[in-house]
Amino acid sequence: MSSQAPHPALLIPGPIEFDDEVLASMSHYSESHVGAPFVNTFGECLSMLRKLFQTENPSSQPFVISGSGTLGWDQVAANVTEPGEDALVLHTGYFADSFADCFETYGVNATQLKAPIGDRPQLDEVEKALKEKKYKVITVTHTDTSTGVLSEIKPLADLVHKVSPDTLIVVDGVCSVGCEDIQFDAWGIDVVITASQKAIGCPAGLSIVMASGRAIEAFKNRKSRPNSYFGSWKNWLPIMQNYEAKKPSYFATPSPQLIHALHTALKQILSQPLADRFARHKKVSQGVKKEIDAMGLKQLASKPENQASGMTAIYLPEGLTPPEILPTLMKKGVIFAGGLHKEIAAKYIRFGHMGVSVMSEQRDDISRALKALKEGLAEVNATKGGK
Amino acid sequence: MSSQAPHPALLIPGPIEFDDEVLASMSHYSESHVGAPFVNTFGECLSMLRKLFQTENPSSQPFVISGSGTLGWDQVAANVTEPGEDALVLHTGYFADSFADCFETYGVNATQLKAPIGDRPQLDEVEKALKEKKYKVITVTHTDTSTGVLSEIKPLADLVHKVSPDTLIVVDGVCSVGCEDIQFDAWGIDVVITASQKAIGCPAGLSIVMASGRAIEAFKNRKSRPNSYFGSWKNWLPIMQNYEAKKPSYFATPSPQLIHALHTALKQILSQPLADRFARHKKVSQGVKKEIDAMGLKQLASKPENQASGMTAIYLPEGLTPPEILPTLMKKGVIFAGGLHKEIAAKYIRFGHMGVSVMSEQRDDISRALKALKEGLAEVNATKGGK
Repeated sequence: MSSQAPHPALLIPGPIEFDDEVLASMSHYSESHVGAPFVNTFGECLSMLRKLFQTENPSSQPFVISGSGTLGWDQVAANVTEPGEDALVLHTGYFADSFADCFETYGVNATQLKAPIGDRPQLDEVEKALKEKKYKVITVTHTDTSTGVLSEIKPLADLVHKVSPDTLIVVDGVCSVGCEDIQFDAWGIDVVITASQKAIGCPAGLSIVMASGRAIEAFKNRKSRPNSYFGSWKNWLPIMQNYEAKKPSYFATPSPQLIHALHTALKQILSQPLADRFARHKKVSQGVKKEIDAMGLKQLASKPENQASGMTAIYLPEGLTPPEILPTLMKKGVIFAGGLHKEIAAKYIRFGHMGVSVMSEQRDDISRALKALKEGLAEVNATKGGK
Repeated sequence: MSSQAPHPALLIPGPIEFDDEVLASMSHYSESHVGAPFVNTFGECLSMLRKLFQTENPSSQPFVISGSGTLGWDQVAANVTEPGEDALVLHTGYFADSFADCFETYGVNATQLKAPIGDRPQLDEVEKALKEKKYKVITVTHTDTSTGVLSEIKPLADLVHKVSPDTLIVVDGVCSVGCEDIQFDAWGIDVVITASQKAIGCPAGLSIVMASGRAIEAFKNRKSRPNSYFGSWKNWLPIMQNYEAKKPSYFATPSPQLIHALHTALKQILSQPLADRFARHKKVSQGVKKEIDAMGLKQLASKPENQASGMTAIYLPEGLTPPEILPTLMKKGVIFAGGLHKEIAAKYIRFGHMGVSVMSEQRDDISRALKALKEGLAEVNATKGGK
């Protein structure tokens, strides 16, 4: 039994449902942000993040800063790239447009490589683009939360290493870290940015970043100073290194309660093999997608190989809009999200299946959601048909 | 009786002790960041902030963004000022140096007006500086957390309005909002930045800003785009306006749990007249300062009129350092902070007296802290004398 007040199951692609123990950690009594107990907790979070990202290279550097996933983009654009440099942004939905906008804010030229809605740029197109211009970074959204389209990171990284080895590989893992396999060292990734409130399973409010030694070198070799203050690695790097060495340090006040919740969430994740966690998400996702198919519904992600494990974006039957179906689902105790990709937002809904809703043996969130969707669609259709 | 686990009383100048009900709000079950219940809660927070800042002018604009107080500086430097413009930074401690550094990051020229440690720039010096150059903004730290020095906002604002009426007045209220009187409208202030974890009494993780119509106009009339993405008012202004109108809206995911805690904290603050709250903080502070005097200890803030109500920075007896006394206090169940002003950090400690520790009739945090300090000093002196 959950100790949480009764509430509809939140099955949007983040924030997700949180475990009782994680939520209890949010109420931790107040601690000094420079006292030993809190500094130890923060340091352990950073060490655990290395495990979650599967990096043992000591030059890898985790960052945890109060903010949201979006702040990760600022961190990349303000620290890794410099004004006038070029970024190649692979587009699989809304979040590539925003990341490109962030680069432009910092004076970095963003070139977007687009694919039809529901698909992703193909490797030969990426290769062609990389050969045409020298890019400081290439960015890829692992799972685009607006479309549920998954990008394959390893083959992409292999290609970049071969064709343009100096280009740094930046992964937007906001909707993938914690539910999709990410082998930071083995695949040779340079930056992964993410947030706390999705598959990591900790309430929103933290920007989480893992940077490679190469990314940190690029930062250290900048000709200009980082052009953010709150998001500056010049300010945060010594702090993160001190925290991990369990030494008190101050730049800006972190959120002890959120850090405690992150600590609990990471401990839970690492209490079993990561491979099992990723496999479980994949299995549940495949089950969801099969049921969606069986209901006669189509997904935005058009091919099995580019469908994310943590969410499913579902086209509604012709003529039905999110405001017609979402309240019905809510009455059945399930919250889904509306569309976010601006060209087709009124045509689809999004179902997040990540974290405790997927991993817990005690919860039936996913099966209840599928049942609610099936019944809800039938009810709405009946009502519309009867008009 | 508190429902919190037993712990030493946190009496540093932020984070402070939090009320049970506020901490319980941190464990709120997960909600959609675009669902009506959460949007209503966020909107009410913004409306309550107007009351806390004593502004009824509809053109005033509150912002609440995941981050820390520091992010407020970025918001000012990236939205209100433009590269090449000038900022006059009144210096009363560590935080003016940092704010100036933040301005320089964004290409704004920061001129610091310094005072001897423990004092503040005098009005005639400010007047002289304002007459020498055209400043886009003047900034003042209301209470500098590193020194406990209070700046007087109203006379300063009156002077600026008279001498340099186009100069926007920016108040760093991180350590003052919630415990010092701030009359946003009546005094004609343009921006106040603050954070959640001090006298507002909500755990750390939120950057809170109130901007005047003039400040928003300055932002709208920029010749260049805001040079931050996560901190850009271009991105956040429509979101905040929508939240307050109770309309769902998305730029970056806020932290529902922190917003619930802020809601609880603001409701508690506004449940009694603000004047009573400020008077209570002043009275308790004067009591603390009298006891400190009686112990033969000197304050950093050298004159009664520049001593903050929310904290006291205390010089240790000659030869005694913070690492010698702070662990003794901790054993007595009280946590104070060490020095932060770099020139004299080893010579003083800081005692925060804000929020629930001051306002609650049930708690004896302040009297216990004074007793611990008195006894602790005697013990440490005896030990040192015996060596």
